[in-house]
Amino acid sequence: MPEAIDFYFDFSSPYGYLASTRIDGIAAKHGRQVRWRPFLLGAAFKTTEQKPLVEQPLRGDYHRHDFARSARLFGVPFRLPDPFPFAAVAPSRAFYWLADRDPEKAKALARAVFHAAFGEGRAVTSAEFVAALAEPIGVDRAELLAALADPAVKQRLRAETDAAIARGAFGSPFVVVDGEPFWGSDRLDQVDRWLATGGW
Amino acid sequence: MPEAIDFYFDFSSPYGYLASTRIDGIAAKHGRQVRWRPFLLGAAFKTTEQKPLVEQPLRGDYHRHDFARSARLFGVPFRLPDPFPFAAVAPSRAFYWLADRDPEKAKALARAVFHAAFGEGRAVTSAEFVAALAEPIGVDRAELLAALADPAVKQRLRAETDAAIARGAFGSPFVVVDGEPFWGSDRLDQVDRWLATGGW
Repeated sequence: MPEAIDFYFDFSSPYGYLASTRIDGIAAKHGRQVRWRPFLLGAAFKTTEQKPLVEQPLRGDYHRHDFARSARLFGVPFRLPDPFPFAAVAPSRAFYWLADRDPEKAKALARAVFHAAFGEGRAVTSAEFVAALAEPIGVDRAELLAALADPAVKQRLRAETDAAIARGAFGSPFVVVDGEPFWGSDRLDQVDRWLATGGW
Repeated sequence: MPEAIDFYFDFSSPYGYLASTRIDGIAAKHGRQVRWRPFLLGAAFKTTEQKPLVEQPLRGDYHRHDFARSARLFGVPFRLPDPFPFAAVAPSRAFYWLADRDPEKAKALARAVFHAAFGEGRAVTSAEFVAALAEPIGVDRAELLAALADPAVKQRLRAETDAAIARGAFGSPFVVVDGEPFWGSDRLDQVDRWLATGGW
């Protein structure tokens, strides 16, 4: 079976949200699975000396405009959460904890988090909100809240974030196909082409 | 006659080079002209607090790889000049001086500069090199060299750079279609679509 592709993203990334709506469909066309890998982009920014797009002069204005324009192009709803960016520690921890138990549920939770954040414009920061999003997926609320406070779960997210950065992920989304990295939701057509052709 | 589209770029930008090979063809399909507008990206970086991509941890490695990969996708030759980035003051001044006299020759010079820089990997920094590239286009060498030292020509480039930044150009290429901004050579398909549809 061919290698899964890796989809690195931050839950507080509009372009990560956009990519999340297409990445599995693109992979499936080529018989591939996708490993979803949330990480904390803020940690990468310490390495790259960047700060969030919307806080940058000129670039912030452009990207606020482009988030919505890109969402229209993707045909998905879009609202910028307030505050934005938001701290995505809780949903990221919840994702990995759940992924070890039920990968499909973890992906369903990730979709619910992204939809709440950018489909509905709600910052997904609190453990309580994550638990509320996880409940309809069949995740026990008390169990999830306990996991979010577990040092091992916290450490897991740190390790995943370090691994993402070691892999070169400096932005969101960052997709790796057979070792080939692609940055940005506007590169998904290239990901599709790379999967189809094996490179160019 | 419909409004020309504006193509802002820095001569030391690989993605600007890539866009330069396609932008006129895309515009022509829709009956549009292109105004080529070199500016000094370093001045924009002062506003956006950025530095050249290749000097940035993680991002530098990715983009070095992506420059060449994108060039293969565009089907154009690519060599990174040494040094890179290079100071593109002389070719930019020459462009505007020539554009006031003969816009077609100015565009031909811009193509020659980009080809030398990224097709052949030669930094186009010195006035002498610019004059050598301009000569086959029919530009008098002594006249060009004198122009490059003219305070009015220097001021013109400063004004064009300020105007580009005021328009929002924080990167290269930066294309404006009927007021709509697009950043990056990987957005030319969107430029094409915007020209075809008037927006989405």
